[in-house]
Amino acid sequence: DDIAIGKQKATTCAACHGEQGVSVIPMYPHLAGQQAVYFENQMKAFRSGARPNPIMGNLAKPLSDEDIRQLALYYASLKL
Amino acid sequence: DDIAIGKQKATTCAACHGEQGVSVIPMYPHLAGQQAVYFENQMKAFRSGARPNPIMGNLAKPLSDEDIRQLALYYASLKL
Repeated sequence: DDIAIGKQKATTCAACHGEQGVSVIPMYPHLAGQQAVYFENQMKAFRSGARPNPIMGNLAKPLSDEDIRQLALYYASLKL
Repeated sequence: DDIAIGKQKATTCAACHGEQGVSVIPMYPHLAGQQAVYFENQMKAFRSGARPNPIMGNLAKPLSDEDIRQLALYYASLKL
């Protein structure tokens, strides 16, 4: 199911955003419980460069819309 | 105290981000419990235009660093 697949795809993200989407690095946002639509829009903005960010731009570049959709559903499912 | 003052300054924000920082509009992020440093950096990026956003750019423009610091502390103090 989407959330389980999203969780697998989130292994890279955990380094900065925390195992359960609860970031332990103050400059990086918590993702747990975040609005899925907002999450998707931001990841697409990173991917396109509309939201300029050297780290996230590179990480989002290879992601498909499907990857982003599943990551969004996974993180929205977590409790902050 | 900073959080109480931040709460007063957050009345405008509640329209999109919800009364307790829990957004009811899927394209707008929850702010409750978010990392204060991340929040501050994003508001300053909106204010400077480094993070382009027509709505947030205008809303952030008149804010001082102190306003942003207190808003950040207020939202970080809320439970998502």
